[in-house]
Amino acid sequence: MPHIDLEPGVPGIRSAMEFRPETARPLLELAETLLRNDNTLSRGERELIAAYVSNLNRCEFCHASHRAFAGAQLEAGTDLVDQVSADLATAPVSDKLRALLQIAGKVVEGGLSVLPEDVGRARGAGATDVEIHDTVLIAAAFCMYNRYVDGLATWAPDDDAAYTAMAERIVTQGYVGR
Amino acid sequence: MPHIDLEPGVPGIRSAMEFRPETARPLLELAETLLRNDNTLSRGERELIAAYVSNLNRCEFCHASHRAFAGAQLEAGTDLVDQVSADLATAPVSDKLRALLQIAGKVVEGGLSVLPEDVGRARGAGATDVEIHDTVLIAAAFCMYNRYVDGLATWAPDDDAAYTAMAERIVTQGYVGR
Repeated sequence: MPHIDLEPGVPGIRSAMEFRPETARPLLELAETLLRNDNTLSRGERELIAAYVSNLNRCEFCHASHRAFAGAQLEAGTDLVDQVSADLATAPVSDKLRALLQIAGKVVEGGLSVLPEDVGRARGAGATDVEIHDTVLIAAAFCMYNRYVDGLATWAPDDDAAYTAMAERIVTQGYVGR
Repeated sequence: MPHIDLEPGVPGIRSAMEFRPETARPLLELAETLLRNDNTLSRGERELIAAYVSNLNRCEFCHASHRAFAGAQLEAGTDLVDQVSADLATAPVSDKLRALLQIAGKVVEGGLSVLPEDVGRARGAGATDVEIHDTVLIAAAFCMYNRYVDGLATWAPDDDAAYTAMAERIVTQGYVGR
């Protein structure tokens, strides 16, 4: 049961955002900018970072959502998301994406855990400064979203169909319906 | 030295936001809404939560900044911020604020660490659902800002005067200069 009086039946972060529309607006704008605006990292790759971080933070709602959003926008689908979460070292991703995901994992531990050699590995595999920046901020942002969702004990649907439906909406309309 | 090519001499999160103005806008809007918009928690109390969380996350720049911002807006000044960081159990704050700060500390550990009894203690001391919501989101947001600042290894000035000057600007103009 949620810790505060959230609308029953409204899933995860949406219930918290309906409760407090003032803060919902910048939270959604941030997600739209980070995960959907033009970028040299594809939308699927960015959602994969979000799903990977949410799994490390054990946030069931965010992991299931962004796993579905990544799967809908990656050629290899949710299988790739699951392989990355199960074992990043052997998952079939490019060296650049693997190095960026390693940086994201360090951000989950804490900002000070990101070391020059982590960044050097990503740069050596072709990552740009903007890609490194965006990876750090996506990972940091999901350390916020995950804590927001679970810190209020919001409700997470347990049927895959709910997340598939959300994915269709996000892929076609985005986070802010622009 | 910062992990990416940030402008030398620009402190902390400001260097990262100048590097990427697209994401700076929602980040600043979120801070303005959470820390400065009308609220039953005072601006000083909300900055105190931000400083407390930043200290738990060992983010030197964010702690020094929000310690100064809180101090400038609390009657007891930075002494109270330091007492809260040193020992929350004995710091001279109201039972309500102590319970909210305890919730913020749980959010730092992870969203799932916030238990019904933590929220019950805050509610028993008079906290409203909106105050509990805002405390969770302020704490979660600083788990993001702290990781963003340190995950890019931004520069933190080590003289108090720099933070005092920032505090004057924030107190008079806010985060987005509205």
